[in-house]
Amino acid sequence: MFKSIVLPATFPVLLLGVAGHAMADEGQWQPHQLPQLKSELKRIGITMPAEKLADLSKHPMSAIVSLGGCSASFVSPDGLVVTNHHCGYGAIQRNSTPEKNYIVDGFLAKTRAEELPGGPNTLVYVTEKVENVTDRVLKDLGANLTGRQRNEAISSRVKALIAECESDKAYRCSVPAFHRGLEYYRIKQLMIRDVRLVYAPSDKIGNFGGDIDNYEWPRQTGDYSFLRAYVGPDGRPADPSPNNVPYKSKDYLVVSAEGLKNGDPILLAGYPGRTSRYKLPSEIRFARDTDFPAKAATITADLAVIAEATKGNPAWDVRYASVAKSLNNVLKKTQGLMDGFARKDVAAIKDVQDAEFRAWYAKNGSGPQLLADLDAVIAADMALSREEAAYAEASHSDLLKSARTLYRLAQERQKPDAEREAGYQERDLSFIKARLTRLEQSFVPGVDQARYAAALNRYAKIDPKLRPQGLDALLPAANSLGSLYQSTELADTNKRLAWIGKDVDAFRASKDPFIVLAVRLNEVATNLDERRKEVDGNLDRTIPQYMAAVIAYKKSQGKPVYPDANSTLRVTFGTVAPYTPRDGLVKGPFTTVEGIVEKATDKDPFLVPAALTEAVKAKRYGVFKDPVLNTVPVNFLSSADTTGGNSGSAVMNKRGELVGLNFDSTYESITKDWYFDTAITRAIHVDIRYMLWVMKEVDHADNLLKEMTIKYPKK
Amino acid sequence: MFKSIVLPATFPVLLLGVAGHAMADEGQWQPHQLPQLKSELKRIGITMPAEKLADLSKHPMSAIVSLGGCSASFVSPDGLVVTNHHCGYGAIQRNSTPEKNYIVDGFLAKTRAEELPGGPNTLVYVTEKVENVTDRVLKDLGANLTGRQRNEAISSRVKALIAECESDKAYRCSVPAFHRGLEYYRIKQLMIRDVRLVYAPSDKIGNFGGDIDNYEWPRQTGDYSFLRAYVGPDGRPADPSPNNVPYKSKDYLVVSAEGLKNGDPILLAGYPGRTSRYKLPSEIRFARDTDFPAKAATITADLAVIAEATKGNPAWDVRYASVAKSLNNVLKKTQGLMDGFARKDVAAIKDVQDAEFRAWYAKNGSGPQLLADLDAVIAADMALSREEAAYAEASHSDLLKSARTLYRLAQERQKPDAEREAGYQERDLSFIKARLTRLEQSFVPGVDQARYAAALNRYAKIDPKLRPQGLDALLPAANSLGSLYQSTELADTNKRLAWIGKDVDAFRASKDPFIVLAVRLNEVATNLDERRKEVDGNLDRTIPQYMAAVIAYKKSQGKPVYPDANSTLRVTFGTVAPYTPRDGLVKGPFTTVEGIVEKATDKDPFLVPAALTEAVKAKRYGVFKDPVLNTVPVNFLSSADTTGGNSGSAVMNKRGELVGLNFDSTYESITKDWYFDTAITRAIHVDIRYMLWVMKEVDHADNLLKEMTIKYPKK
Repeated sequence: MFKSIVLPATFPVLLLGVAGHAMADEGQWQPHQLPQLKSELKRIGITMPAEKLADLSKHPMSAIVSLGGCSASFVSPDGLVVTNHHCGYGAIQRNSTPEKNYIVDGFLAKTRAEELPGGPNTLVYVTEKVENVTDRVLKDLGANLTGRQRNEAISSRVKALIAECESDKAYRCSVPAFHRGLEYYRIKQLMIRDVRLVYAPSDKIGNFGGDIDNYEWPRQTGDYSFLRAYVGPDGRPADPSPNNVPYKSKDYLVVSAEGLKNGDPILLAGYPGRTSRYKLPSEIRFARDTDFPAKAATITADLAVIAEATKGNPAWDVRYASVAKSLNNVLKKTQGLMDGFARKDVAAIKDVQDAEFRAWYAKNGSGPQLLADLDAVIAADMALSREEAAYAEASHSDLLKSARTLYRLAQERQKPDAEREAGYQERDLSFIKARLTRLEQSFVPGVDQARYAAALNRYAKIDPKLRPQGLDALLPAANSLGSLYQSTELADTNKRLAWIGKDVDAFRASKDPFIVLAVRLNEVATNLDERRKEVDGNLDRTIPQYMAAVIAYKKSQGKPVYPDANSTLRVTFGTVAPYTPRDGLVKGPFTTVEGIVEKATDKDPFLVPAALTEAVKAKRYGVFKDPVLNTVPVNFLSSADTTGGNSGSAVMNKRGELVGLNFDSTYESITKDWYFDTAITRAIHVDIRYMLWVMKEVDHADNLLKEMTIKYPKK
Repeated sequence: MFKSIVLPATFPVLLLGVAGHAMADEGQWQPHQLPQLKSELKRIGITMPAEKLADLSKHPMSAIVSLGGCSASFVSPDGLVVTNHHCGYGAIQRNSTPEKNYIVDGFLAKTRAEELPGGPNTLVYVTEKVENVTDRVLKDLGANLTGRQRNEAISSRVKALIAECESDKAYRCSVPAFHRGLEYYRIKQLMIRDVRLVYAPSDKIGNFGGDIDNYEWPRQTGDYSFLRAYVGPDGRPADPSPNNVPYKSKDYLVVSAEGLKNGDPILLAGYPGRTSRYKLPSEIRFARDTDFPAKAATITADLAVIAEATKGNPAWDVRYASVAKSLNNVLKKTQGLMDGFARKDVAAIKDVQDAEFRAWYAKNGSGPQLLADLDAVIAADMALSREEAAYAEASHSDLLKSARTLYRLAQERQKPDAEREAGYQERDLSFIKARLTRLEQSFVPGVDQARYAAALNRYAKIDPKLRPQGLDALLPAANSLGSLYQSTELADTNKRLAWIGKDVDAFRASKDPFIVLAVRLNEVATNLDERRKEVDGNLDRTIPQYMAAVIAYKKSQGKPVYPDANSTLRVTFGTVAPYTPRDGLVKGPFTTVEGIVEKATDKDPFLVPAALTEAVKAKRYGVFKDPVLNTVPVNFLSSADTTGGNSGSAVMNKRGELVGLNFDSTYESITKDWYFDTAITRAIHVDIRYMLWVMKEVDHADNLLKEMTIKYPKK
């Protein structure tokens, strides 16, 4: 599956209008895999040695951090972190008031003292160690375990590995599966919990184009912001405190304002969230024909309910703005997947690949049993997932979900910590609390009631065979929810949080209608969880054998195999490259500041700060003027392999210098999570020259320009 | 205003995403002007000598013909003519029946005997002579004539020049004004009136994309058809007859299947209709702020009335399909003009140019009187045009317009032929008759009544000051039209035609309500006509002096000046070139046969013949495969300067060989009729390789492939 063809710098425009000539670079590689790809890296023009990229303790990888869901990187020895505007958004929003609206006006701390607290959800994770612990997770697992037994055994070993690693409280550890459970690595991350907002441009820059331009190109978004990691005076992570000092980042990225041009190689490092590249054709068809359409229909209906319920009430509208934004994002992604699968028959392509693999396996594999087992387990997984989706509709209320979490927590706390379910251990408590607190920002009882009522009505239309057994009788009537919402106290944050730590009896004795409902649904929910464990355990048994065979098959063709994304540190590489979305049309690879002015209207999200317009009209480009474009570039496209979680990822030039930030991909690329189509897959990056230009000409962030190490182009 | 910058063949894709780098070539040159442009032609790579292009009696210009509204060219010594599908449409439609639907299925005469009559509206005009007759039109016109006297004097001299030229009945002559009346040329054209349909692909090819893709790119339209000119056995034009023989075209174009690539030079020759490049800023503002918005509003309203009136009646709907199509085309063009003027402040650009000119004129001109006169005359023209627009609303009925034509004809026929108004002479009779006959194809009394009623209501909303004096009292009430349509006989074609030749008294005695109305409105209409003559005469006096000054000014800068288009033979040249409609996006320059399959749906206008799809899927490209695109190109963009009337124009390579047909321009180019913006103006051509490929692989038109002289690429 590995392909890389160099795009020469003088790639003639003659090719305009031809599909299939653009090249892209598939692969989200674990850093330790990079030495295998030496010749590929060299071929596209990367001069940084692959061995250096493989060493997490060395520059540049030691500067690449996670924000938990987003990626970022250190850009100064004093813990200065650069990421996307949308990744720093929580910190910006948290500090904004109607009087000091940093979302609209932007924010710049001119001194360290002016830096603002990022809040409990703004965290920096520095990956310090990655160990292969496959043996400790899988060794000597009995071949005859039931699915559930296997799942629990793996889970228990993983928890022990984490506990061992987290004996130093400065660290947060995880043991994610790679290659669908064939391998396990233990990731040890320093967790910095005093992170402050340093600088964010106005959302007119940072979110220019807004939802309308989300997943679109042409794009002109300055999607960046700066944070700073603080630690205790002893240099170790500490709770937020005025006594904390900037974290002395071991390494940081040098910034290059020298710029890229079409065809130049790039490296991209970050924490991609999740891909499904190794799914079987049956899984793709299930997703395409059942899962995606159902998901799109549910979200579309839910969005309509939210719009209707918040109509005429600006305060409610604001409360649900981020919920709607996030739902819209998932919807656009889901629709992009459906459109993409309609445009290109990925399942058919996978059929061919699968048939080739099966032919190879028939000769080189360990007999037909595995593939038969696999098909059966996958069928069970698909069937269960439909019941889970039905259950999700039946419990589509933020209050009910909170009650379920709280009751589940009480149940788990009856056990010793090490035996509790992952997610309900002591180490998870602060996250549970933060989640239950954060709800107040995006919740209104009346809206939740409308959403739940509509979901119950949708549930009632689901084929009874696809509903969890016994659930129907336990549910409230959609038209009787009023009394539940009137008498519940869970909508009050303090009262909601007060349930943390209460015991199971307290829940059983409660008269709060949502606690009562959560207790009533417990048996059905637990039953689904148990069946999920059985299915997952069976997947854990069969899929790794399948993946081992796939890897052996690829190896027989001389092709290295990268694991699906799983929120761990990965490196991908590619070239700056345009693409042909359809016959006669070429998109990218660059946009320019003139494009911002061209797109400007007097309405959000196409408002432009006057200072920016003025600088463009005066052609005050400074050193950031691209010699080919003759102006300042804003966004650019590359063929690198990215997905959600790669937001904020460092885009580096061949020498490992920071030249941009990843923040999105094009609409046609959405299917890449399932199938990487080299001709059309493009990631969207903000050019560092635009960021530096805004910092200099618009926001006057001279203190930060001084703090970073910036290589300017030679005159 | 003349600019031409060579686009090198290896124009790097680096420039992608940058506006303003694409180059285009302004100028619709009279052939005799080409020797002045020798160095420009050479610079873009045209190897054919400019002198050859200037000689209408020589190849290739002698092969470039007009169809009256469209352009075309001879492509065999036996009168075979190639033009656009939409230019041959009348002939195709005329021969189609529900049983033999040549529109949908296409038509191919395998032998000459199978060729079908094109009908009275299908004519071929071969330009044989172009003489400068400025002196004979303008010499010794008294300086103190009133506008009307001047207009009539010019008109009378023009009519005499035409009559003299048409003494040989084989010819049709005209004496159009050039440079807004500074020069007059007499054009002598052989008029061939037996023209037959030879071959047209299915409209799935010839009109692929239909109205949706009109003015759009990406485009994949095979907009071509073939006709044949027939003459009497004596070689002279004759009425259609089975005894006629193919016209022995003096010259014909050699077809080159060798193809073009991005950056290659092209020549384009044809009969562009009308441009407004030398309008003053005040004229542009009037068009932009008054004329275009009013026109768009009127057409939009009229289209809605037609849609409503034909709803539920498929037969009526068909009757008005071509009316609606044509209105939609004008509307899209008008909206494109408004959008373009909103995007780019052309009036402001012209202000700067005008100020520069006035500064030069202040030093080099003949005093301030001319420019003051000019402004006054233009103001009068604009004021009168608003009254004319009001009159058009008040008479927006096909029956009333027919009655007006007929009554006007009766009035003119009271005079000797030479003294009649242009358009009402004996030489015009056959055209008037054809027009009055053709009405039956696109007319239904009930629909006409609805349109007229709506127009009268729109008229009633016009500011009374802008209505022709006395008109209000003469008009029928919008809600009283039923009785008019019930008792008129003009809806019957034979009865309508029977009025030709009747005298004025017959009209005055008539009780037919539309004849009565035409007689009643005659005074107001005549008054408007007289005032138009006065204004036009004053324009004839001032504008040529202004244009002479503009030409002298341009000459002082070493720039040759081409006249506005006026449906006479012109040559333009440019290069195959993509363009950037907005930041981050590049369009063109080629589309491919794969793009057709990509765009195909199961609905008109995106239906694709199965044979075409099959040939594409089998990659049966044959010799028509482009070596760079690796497939068959369909349409391409060039920077040549075109407008309406250029439909069907020959696109030639540097050696004057036919490589494509012009058929449209891009939406962003629409403003070019007023201002040629080199960065975005692109004409759309069908690539000859696509035509030949369809003829070979889809339609098997081997007889025509054999008849033409085709240069195939070397192996």
